Amino acid sequence: MAGPSGKKEKVDKAGPSGKKKKDVKKETGLGLSVKKDENFGEWYSEVCKHEMIEYYDISGCYILRPWSMAIWEIMQSFFDAEIKKMKVKNCYFPLFVSPGVLEKEKDHIEGFAPEVAWVTKSGKSDLEVPIAIRPTSETVMYPYYSKWIRGHRDLPLKLNQWCNVVRWEFSNPTPFIRSREFLWQEGHTAFATKEEADEEVLQILELYRRIYEEYLAVPVVKGMKSENEKFAGGLYTTSVEAFIPNTGRGVQGATSHCLGQNFAKMFEINYENEKGETAMVWQNSWAYSTRTIGVMIMTHGDDKGLILPPKVASVQVVVIPVPYKDANTQGIFDACTATVSALIDAGIRAEDDLRDNYSPGWKYSNWEMKGVPLRIEIGPRDLENNQVRTVRRDNGVKEDIPRDSLVEHVKALLEKIQENMYEVAKQKREACVEEVKTWDEFIEALNKKKLILAPWCDEEEVERDVKARTKGETGAAKTLCSPFDQPELPEGTLCFASGKPAKKWTYWGRSY
Amino acid sequence: MAGPSGKKEKVDKAGPSGKKKKDVKKETGLGLSVKKDENFGEWYSEVCKHEMIEYYDISGCYILRPWSMAIWEIMQSFFDAEIKKMKVKNCYFPLFVSPGVLEKEKDHIEGFAPEVAWVTKSGKSDLEVPIAIRPTSETVMYPYYSKWIRGHRDLPLKLNQWCNVVRWEFSNPTPFIRSREFLWQEGHTAFATKEEADEEVLQILELYRRIYEEYLAVPVVKGMKSENEKFAGGLYTTSVEAFIPNTGRGVQGATSHCLGQNFAKMFEINYENEKGETAMVWQNSWAYSTRTIGVMIMTHGDDKGLILPPKVASVQVVVIPVPYKDANTQGIFDACTATVSALIDAGIRAEDDLRDNYSPGWKYSNWEMKGVPLRIEIGPRDLENNQVRTVRRDNGVKEDIPRDSLVEHVKALLEKIQENMYEVAKQKREACVEEVKTWDEFIEALNKKKLILAPWCDEEEVERDVKARTKGETGAAKTLCSPFDQPELPEGTLCFASGKPAKKWTYWGRSY
Repeated sequence: MAGPSGKKEKVDKAGPSGKKKKDVKKETGLGLSVKKDENFGEWYSEVCKHEMIEYYDISGCYILRPWSMAIWEIMQSFFDAEIKKMKVKNCYFPLFVSPGVLEKEKDHIEGFAPEVAWVTKSGKSDLEVPIAIRPTSETVMYPYYSKWIRGHRDLPLKLNQWCNVVRWEFSNPTPFIRSREFLWQEGHTAFATKEEADEEVLQILELYRRIYEEYLAVPVVKGMKSENEKFAGGLYTTSVEAFIPNTGRGVQGATSHCLGQNFAKMFEINYENEKGETAMVWQNSWAYSTRTIGVMIMTHGDDKGLILPPKVASVQVVVIPVPYKDANTQGIFDACTATVSALIDAGIRAEDDLRDNYSPGWKYSNWEMKGVPLRIEIGPRDLENNQVRTVRRDNGVKEDIPRDSLVEHVKALLEKIQENMYEVAKQKREACVEEVKTWDEFIEALNKKKLILAPWCDEEEVERDVKARTKGETGAAKTLCSPFDQPELPEGTLCFASGKPAKKWTYWGRSY
Repeated sequence: MAGPSGKKEKVDKAGPSGKKKKDVKKETGLGLSVKKDENFGEWYSEVCKHEMIEYYDISGCYILRPWSMAIWEIMQSFFDAEIKKMKVKNCYFPLFVSPGVLEKEKDHIEGFAPEVAWVTKSGKSDLEVPIAIRPTSETVMYPYYSKWIRGHRDLPLKLNQWCNVVRWEFSNPTPFIRSREFLWQEGHTAFATKEEADEEVLQILELYRRIYEEYLAVPVVKGMKSENEKFAGGLYTTSVEAFIPNTGRGVQGATSHCLGQNFAKMFEINYENEKGETAMVWQNSWAYSTRTIGVMIMTHGDDKGLILPPKVASVQVVVIPVPYKDANTQGIFDACTATVSALIDAGIRAEDDLRDNYSPGWKYSNWEMKGVPLRIEIGPRDLENNQVRTVRRDNGVKEDIPRDSLVEHVKALLEKIQENMYEVAKQKREACVEEVKTWDEFIEALNKKKLILAPWCDEEEVERDVKARTKGETGAAKTLCSPFDQPELPEGTLCFASGKPAKKWTYWGRSY
């Protein structure tokens, strides 16, 4: 595949073992052209282009290359198994929605209408009626929920699908974070009681937290979205919210909605309860998307490129031979192969890089760029001492480890890297949190790109007002979420924006 | 979920243990309204509606319900693991294609143009340029293959994606078999040499054969498509072909294409070879779709409903309590639960049906309708004798087996069922094969719905002529494939249609 630059320069013919060293060095220099702190947007785009994403010839659409797709698949395996334990079943509903159904829930369609893509032609003929492409599948699915749910024994109904959705947005497309087509799972469930629905909302939200914190090593806050920010047509929305210190922006990580009975009313999803009466179901919907991968890249990447958390890296360890003129090259290569075999046998995703047309130094940069969590180098001295050298991607720490305790060492190291990445990210985020009490403090914190925690009166009008007053080039501030884990709110605390009595602490900031 | 009729009648309130027997019997009668031999089309549609498919409000689109989705996922697990062993990597390319790229390969677009769905609007605005929805992804992917492939070390490039595609067909939509949107995998590979490409074509074809024969218990013929029937824009197409005796129609099961260098030429997919010269890659593409499930249903289903091969059934064994007035009902229920646990622990997909509002007889019909391969009944006598009764779905054979050898017995039975389903299907197909030598024999066999094997001169013009001469209400006859396993062709054998010297044996028939 393409080298680390992604450009179409000539193939490097440096030959084996780092000969023609100067040529090689030059190509090693073809890393990132900007630093993360200097131009975050450009940095992000460059990092993504290193085998995660390819920009596509239709704006806002991106190609997920194997390097990112593998991460998606690993998260999918985890989440799919977890929801199956909860007796959620997978299904597949069509990509297309007829306009009548799409427009049935008024608030819902208002939220999505401007972004809906419409098919109006097939071949050379016009369709009788234009057909929408799903931006989400509530209106696709619920007419059938109405058909399938008859009695209380048909509840709960818990379905999920893994699919693509399309939202034809015009603002600032960004790989993974904001694209016109993306992959996600969407769960849609129906219950007899609100209590069951409420409970599931939080169970799913906990799985989303685990994806971010345990898999992607990204700290998130669980909380409630404001009325302004909740899902169009739903009752309430919970989310996990991440924060990108470099841009000072929050990013909604995934959402778990209680839809209440709004859709049930529109789509007549009724059932006969135990008493023989007609009752209406309570519904949830919940989703996470490939946006997760973008948040991970933004959180961990550095000036050398990506840094992948071991739990989602398709290659956790890369083994690189470091031959030297007079040394036993074959012995080194054999040791590399043996090391990889031992790691794979132990369930570690390992790969060697025995290419003879790149120098070790070039390979180091290349795999650092790709974010592989752990590098193992094997040179003549390592061979002699029956050891290997490990180099951590997250902090650069090097260690010589004896070959006979290779597997245990590597396992422990990968765990440490995973933990450390989370801890570092968490510290960086904590350092950005600022509690404010007044409007002036709020504006000051906003200008300093802080993640703002403020006492709020929880009134829609006030949030709209804050948005209007902070509108600028870099976007307006809005609520991110009211964390479930609420700090104490002393009686008499006032809303930072309206001066009315505050009802809760809420995170505010600009967002993606 | 909905009862076996799928209609919205009142929930059956028969109560536990088969009381109110008459009411129950009546509902049991709500099975299929037609027999497979009497009206195959109607039969197929009814069987599909029993929890496999729901018809959607856009014609030609169908909902895959969990019962069929689980089958898709099982096949996917098998195939995905196999291609990963071949070092194929998963990726995801966009749903959308710009017209310029789509139309680059002339033969290719001619093949697909009439069926392409076009997006022309987003929200209320017209798009600057209409955008196509992928009918297949050759033209989506290959511009990037051109970018990524630079030197011989970038080869082979082997990518696959699991996705939806759209072909806006107008002829006779049929669930699974012919739908406007369907799920599939599409593999796209590029090699330095034709030999490697040729080899992979057959490796993949063998995996497709295994999906049909080992998983779906459907016999298929591996062979070569004719020039008329090959993939638009490709060099040659191989396929696995199934046959539906009831309709006398062949059905293309899956295809593995060698694209040759046609697309490489159009998309300039060149590389620098070992000698430093510019060379052009050889490409393959290969796909199987949810059509597989339709072929399985058509092959095995009977007048009682679906019959699922154990290897793809999401429930392989259903355990049903058969309580009786004076008997130890709790003991029977406990035995059911224990049986299911023992089976699940042994890796068998088992479920009990302890619902107290349906009689055992109703449940038998219901699970027969859903095609579960093996039913276990536990009644008072079974409890007494420490045994269970097994009932095979494929042939109805009943057996009493001791509970202490439950697992081994059930495992063996499931294997037998899988084998027997394949053998029965194979015998039925073989009984349909007819060798013909002359045009008259051909027409006679065609009218008798045979799978016709005929010596052919292999000329495109002759196939077109056969099509024209057999055009009728039920569709024209065409080649299905020339089997790789060729019977002897004595010298001097003439083509059944043209009278010219025959070059090969070829299967002919009407098809889906």
